Amino acid sequence: MMRSVYRLVFGRPLRTSEGDHERLDRPRAIGAFGLDALSSVAYGPDEILYVLVLAGSAGVAWNLPIAAAIVALLAIVITSYRQTIFAYPHGGGSYTVARENLATGVSLVAAAALMVDYLTTVAVSITAGVEAIIAFAPALDTIRVPLDVGLILLLMFVNLRGVREAGGLFVIPTYIFVGSLGLLIAWGLFRLTLGGGLPQVPALPAQPIEAVSLFLILRAFAGGCTAMTGVEAIANGVPVFQPPETKNAASTLVILAAVLCALFLGVVALGNAIGAVPSGQANVIAQIGQAVVGSSPLFYLVQISAAVILALAANTSFNGFPLLAAIMARDSYLPHQFGHRGLRLAYSNGIVVLGSLAILLVIAFGGRTHALIPLFAIGVFLCFTLSQTGMVRHWHRLRGPGWPAKLAINGVGAVTTGIVTLIVVTTKFAEGAWIVLVLIPVLVATFSRIHAHYVDEAEELNVGHPPRPAATPHNLLIPVARLDCAVAETVGYALSIGGTVRAMHVVTEDDDAEALRTSWAAWGVEVPLVLVPSPYRTLVGPLLHEIRRIHKEAGGRVTVLLPEVVPRHWWQEGLHNQTVLTLQLALRGAPGVVVTTVPVRLER
Amino acid sequence: MMRSVYRLVFGRPLRTSEGDHERLDRPRAIGAFGLDALSSVAYGPDEILYVLVLAGSAGVAWNLPIAAAIVALLAIVITSYRQTIFAYPHGGGSYTVARENLATGVSLVAAAALMVDYLTTVAVSITAGVEAIIAFAPALDTIRVPLDVGLILLLMFVNLRGVREAGGLFVIPTYIFVGSLGLLIAWGLFRLTLGGGLPQVPALPAQPIEAVSLFLILRAFAGGCTAMTGVEAIANGVPVFQPPETKNAASTLVILAAVLCALFLGVVALGNAIGAVPSGQANVIAQIGQAVVGSSPLFYLVQISAAVILALAANTSFNGFPLLAAIMARDSYLPHQFGHRGLRLAYSNGIVVLGSLAILLVIAFGGRTHALIPLFAIGVFLCFTLSQTGMVRHWHRLRGPGWPAKLAINGVGAVTTGIVTLIVVTTKFAEGAWIVLVLIPVLVATFSRIHAHYVDEAEELNVGHPPRPAATPHNLLIPVARLDCAVAETVGYALSIGGTVRAMHVVTEDDDAEALRTSWAAWGVEVPLVLVPSPYRTLVGPLLHEIRRIHKEAGGRVTVLLPEVVPRHWWQEGLHNQTVLTLQLALRGAPGVVVTTVPVRLER
Repeated sequence: MMRSVYRLVFGRPLRTSEGDHERLDRPRAIGAFGLDALSSVAYGPDEILYVLVLAGSAGVAWNLPIAAAIVALLAIVITSYRQTIFAYPHGGGSYTVARENLATGVSLVAAAALMVDYLTTVAVSITAGVEAIIAFAPALDTIRVPLDVGLILLLMFVNLRGVREAGGLFVIPTYIFVGSLGLLIAWGLFRLTLGGGLPQVPALPAQPIEAVSLFLILRAFAGGCTAMTGVEAIANGVPVFQPPETKNAASTLVILAAVLCALFLGVVALGNAIGAVPSGQANVIAQIGQAVVGSSPLFYLVQISAAVILALAANTSFNGFPLLAAIMARDSYLPHQFGHRGLRLAYSNGIVVLGSLAILLVIAFGGRTHALIPLFAIGVFLCFTLSQTGMVRHWHRLRGPGWPAKLAINGVGAVTTGIVTLIVVTTKFAEGAWIVLVLIPVLVATFSRIHAHYVDEAEELNVGHPPRPAATPHNLLIPVARLDCAVAETVGYALSIGGTVRAMHVVTEDDDAEALRTSWAAWGVEVPLVLVPSPYRTLVGPLLHEIRRIHKEAGGRVTVLLPEVVPRHWWQEGLHNQTVLTLQLALRGAPGVVVTTVPVRLER
Repeated sequence: MMRSVYRLVFGRPLRTSEGDHERLDRPRAIGAFGLDALSSVAYGPDEILYVLVLAGSAGVAWNLPIAAAIVALLAIVITSYRQTIFAYPHGGGSYTVARENLATGVSLVAAAALMVDYLTTVAVSITAGVEAIIAFAPALDTIRVPLDVGLILLLMFVNLRGVREAGGLFVIPTYIFVGSLGLLIAWGLFRLTLGGGLPQVPALPAQPIEAVSLFLILRAFAGGCTAMTGVEAIANGVPVFQPPETKNAASTLVILAAVLCALFLGVVALGNAIGAVPSGQANVIAQIGQAVVGSSPLFYLVQISAAVILALAANTSFNGFPLLAAIMARDSYLPHQFGHRGLRLAYSNGIVVLGSLAILLVIAFGGRTHALIPLFAIGVFLCFTLSQTGMVRHWHRLRGPGWPAKLAINGVGAVTTGIVTLIVVTTKFAEGAWIVLVLIPVLVATFSRIHAHYVDEAEELNVGHPPRPAATPHNLLIPVARLDCAVAETVGYALSIGGTVRAMHVVTEDDDAEALRTSWAAWGVEVPLVLVPSPYRTLVGPLLHEIRRIHKEAGGRVTVLLPEVVPRHWWQEGLHNQTVLTLQLALRGAPGVVVTTVPVRLER
């Protein structure tokens, strides 16, 4: 029955050989990996203007140059990652590149930054999507956090069903968003150039509170760079693509970047043309929509699909995080169980851990996107920086054809993203960025401890070539509560092993002990019964004491054999074996103690 | 460290031989067993008047006769229980008496009724006490249910520390209540007779809505009988008294009954004299206090101590229920673990179960005493009836000196309490009494099923004289993930047992399997390694399949040996043995499968 429920909820189990069918073709890959990047068009342009508007119209004039710089930076990053995909076809992104080219510690920093990025992406996207939904239906504000949690649980569920279905499910809203926003931009550009111009947004009172400064411009630039989050995911997820994996991943990356650039520039340009300034009520896209098509169906289509893909953008992390965790588990930096694929071929443990942490984060921050943003950008820019620094090293090391140009591209990228990282840290430190700066070293230390432990263990256990086993004498001990068939079976099993067999009874009631001694003697099997007093009525203490005594007297291992009664019906479980469970727990990990349970099944 | 925390919270462990020091002397026994009975003076008189006032002043005139009848009934019940204590010095109360004298089924009904009574006593007393506290501090009304739950947890905790300390803790408020209420009654009677009379309570508009009828009088009588709850507990708890147990228990019972009668009659008489009629704001005791001493310290002392002992009256159940559960566990009508005494000599399981059920009940009824009352009285009167019917049978069977008189006393008691039971059921059926009438058969059926199972099991397992053990061939199977020292140790252990030893590897990654096959061959130990494919990547399915294959081929038991890595630090637990745990759970209860864990301890 459990199996039927599992199938209904998660679908039928998938064979390992079916893995190839779970691979993503390019249209599906844009759904699975592109949501995060594409949805950022809904907030990236706003983030630039929020800063520039502080310097009034003189500041806003910098909008288009900054957007152009971001597009240029995106082009550089994309070029770098395209090179990375071909250089590292097995995935791993920043972590792999850093591991191959830089010090181990640096690669762990990259991995930690990447994990923080995946986690905060889930929290930011979900809360931003829910906020967009709430903008349409304000009554839902009271259940903001439950909505956030519900959506995260939905994503966990969909991803546990397997990665292909997840990609398939998210393709439609992505394409609706891209299509409708593209149509809006095209129509807006047509009206602007050939159709007689666009109406201006009612001018806000422009009271500059800051002068235009390099720092202001860099802050605006850093804000706009949130539009670049998500391009990392494809390089990390190369093995999930249909073969030829690298070629498909690289072309998907280029298509995605091209679409992203077109939408981003279009939004910034049209926003400039109508004089849009972001406000609490409507973002730049909404203002463009109102100016170009008014409250028409196209306006609502853009806004609703933006809300949906914002909420779903978190899915990018549900593809990236479990893969990264699996790679790190294979490198022994995370518990090995992160490397196991579940019945539906998904890395279930990574999915569950990511979802749970995101739920905690969302609850801790009350579901407010604005509060989460300072945690958001650091991780991804740290990754960019480390990854591109690694690629610089890569070209310098291998010196393939045309390496100086490639090195130069990556060098420019590394320096630029490094500066952006510093700007983000500086401007957002007090608002919450410090949490990430504390978290990353903690994560790195944890990875190192786990790795050191696995290395020690493998060395200590001589993996691959242990010594040949030596025979040890058997000391067998059977705790006995009463004399019955279960005990008889256990004694028989022990006698057939050989060695020294002893039975022991922990005396809590003198009468019971005396009755047992009598029936044991009458039974006449050649196994001595030791009566051990227990003044405090516990079983564990006297048993451990007896084990120590045998260890001292006879040396070698002690095997404790527990007679276990297996009832026929589940409801009878509570009536038996409480003692067996207690002793199993107590003996777990006791040095030199082998624990054996001998089951006797009740037929009635 | 765990041990220090345990000691701090629960006190040092007690030896079984220290049990006698945990016995109760008579003053402490009144604290431990008397609270329930004595606290009912605070609501018993009210329950009579609530009914009589429906018939106006003509009804209220029946107050004193009914009180006299209740005192007479109490005298009869007490006399009966005094005889029971001497006849059954090992405790068990109604259940024991019914078991010895009536059919088994009847004794189970008595036990079920008693358990329901204990449970509802906890719920009613705690909620009534909290309501009395809330009457002083209305602001606490918002946290009514948390207060109820907190008090029940406190009682659980105190009782887990051991029964003597529980009795000791509750002696002081009991004596303060008895002393202050006694003083109030004496002063009131003095003023009434020699001091010039008492002021009358402002007369309420007497509009009779019912005529005085036999049914009305019996309902009032039934309501007043709630004052009798709790006298059962002493007969049930004889073994907890200091020796001579029976003599001490019997005299405690008589003292308790005498004090209860005096307080009860005093309250009813003074209430009549001042024309008290219960209202939502003040109960009869409060109205007497106002009339006799006004808002003086004595008034507050009576009211506060009443509130405290109402809340603590639940403690009577925490003494009675675990003892009853232990007796029933020894008779195999409840799981045997209810018969084990914990480190502080208390029957811990019974205490925890009673407290947990009471918490659920209080939460389900929203902490409202009035809603719980209909569930309350049935259990205790059903017990009285069955117990006294049993005693009638007892005298008829044994025919000791003076048996006809004793039989007559018990007979009158049985008939009277039987009628009261019927009245309570009839008048309160729709208000919630039906729950108890459903619950008791369910409990009886559960007891019977448990008993039948234990009887079957004992028969099937040949307790006391099982057959002599026979030797069986050993089939040993070692699941192997990789070749390391832990596997080497396990293989060595298996080889020293003898029989057929096989190793198996569940193939999830072809490369890993090939590497293992190579290193296994190079290792050169004479144990074959079987590679079992697992298309769905699970371990359990292929293992069970292999076990079935061996069962079919070789017959006899299969011993599965699991290499277990024991890490040095607790935080490393999550890094190992996830597989061992999974397989242990999956193999638990598999027929014919012995499970052995061979631990290898990491030293680093």
